[in-house]
Amino acid sequence: MRVEIWSDIACPWCYVGKARFEKALAAFPHREQVEVVHRSFELDPGRAKSDIQPVIGMLTKKYGMSQAQAQAGEENLGAQAAAEGLEYRTRDRDHGNTFDMHRLLHLAKEQGRQDELIQAFYKANFAEERSLFAEGDERLVELAVAAGLAAEDARKVLADPTAYADDVRADEREAAELGANGVPFFVLDRKYGVSGAQPAEVFAQALGQAWGERSPLTLIDQGSTGADGDACGPDGCAVPPRP
Amino acid sequence: MRVEIWSDIACPWCYVGKARFEKALAAFPHREQVEVVHRSFELDPGRAKSDIQPVIGMLTKKYGMSQAQAQAGEENLGAQAAAEGLEYRTRDRDHGNTFDMHRLLHLAKEQGRQDELIQAFYKANFAEERSLFAEGDERLVELAVAAGLAAEDARKVLADPTAYADDVRADEREAAELGANGVPFFVLDRKYGVSGAQPAEVFAQALGQAWGERSPLTLIDQGSTGADGDACGPDGCAVPPRP
Repeated sequence: MRVEIWSDIACPWCYVGKARFEKALAAFPHREQVEVVHRSFELDPGRAKSDIQPVIGMLTKKYGMSQAQAQAGEENLGAQAAAEGLEYRTRDRDHGNTFDMHRLLHLAKEQGRQDELIQAFYKANFAEERSLFAEGDERLVELAVAAGLAAEDARKVLADPTAYADDVRADEREAAELGANGVPFFVLDRKYGVSGAQPAEVFAQALGQAWGERSPLTLIDQGSTGADGDACGPDGCAVPPRP
Repeated sequence: MRVEIWSDIACPWCYVGKARFEKALAAFPHREQVEVVHRSFELDPGRAKSDIQPVIGMLTKKYGMSQAQAQAGEENLGAQAAAEGLEYRTRDRDHGNTFDMHRLLHLAKEQGRQDELIQAFYKANFAEERSLFAEGDERLVELAVAAGLAAEDARKVLADPTAYADDVRADEREAAELGANGVPFFVLDRKYGVSGAQPAEVFAQALGQAWGERSPLTLIDQGSTGADGDACGPDGCAVPPRP
């Protein structure tokens, strides 16, 4: 079974929702047969890479919240994160463009390090004092190395803005096609969806339901006029008539 | 969309079927959104690693064919391969255990090199004079390096018989669950199956059908008693009531 998770590094609910999902997955009897893939979704794709702002300032400016409202939202998110055992800095976090991080996540996917890297990005963004955005590319390289990637691979991707850009865009297009307007968005075997940071119980139910309803395949062949496909099995390979 | 292909390196129809599938995929308008994954299936899992035999001898011994029948089968397979533009040695090929190759294919999957490696194995087994089986582990290391893996990574996997062994077994278990008795076996989005080396037209039809019938997701949530999952979207993040 495959679970795809659309998320953004700048999305607090993605950070919290991942922990809730993982709690359900850890208790799922067939967890060894569940493959998790992270997909890209940018909450703020139009923001320039150079445009880095404190989260609270961004919330007041972009969504017209009062300073107090914005701070209260962060405190609430912090409490929800804490309930999942996650660190969350409710003050002085930065907000910025995450496109390069998504490109690096696609590199990491190819090397089997995607989960390690997204977790490193989340921790850097939500739990650590240092800004994830304000220190430039070398900060991302450092996190990539911590996740098990080679520094030179990460630098190469960062130096070439086209590297994995199409993969990020393809993920985002697919999110739209699947009806995801926000993140986190979880898709199980392309059949069931879970939208948002639902409680672990909901993820447990979704995993069980998707597992139980894995449906038999519909076989496609040449129809009544054609022959079966030639195959090899325990009794040897079909020997075709001489073509 | 995802296409999973169960196959064995020792399976001539897998070699031919892969080419036919790729022909259909190359002409498929949404090919950029198709991800291909190779899954393990051993035709002869009980064969000892040291038990290497000429294919013709294996066919006569294992399936009771006459030498002429076995050779005719190989000639036919060679003609089918040639029709797909593939080289195929109809004489003096070897047969042996492929478990270690499948373990290496799982290593290659983690590094985004799976297609390169299975192609290298097929070519070595079906097109080249040198035996894929008779030269020991270093032959496999050589092919892994040609497919873009690090020699030391491949050697480490070969030296540890448990490395990726569970992944190979899990693939094989899943093949049985999906109803595959022989290979190649193609599975599209876990919904459609194509059994055997069908003509490219059948793969084209299967791709089109699976693409066209990508069904809307069934959303799972807390039901009528619960709240929606908290999420972040273009309009900001849901701010929950203080927990």
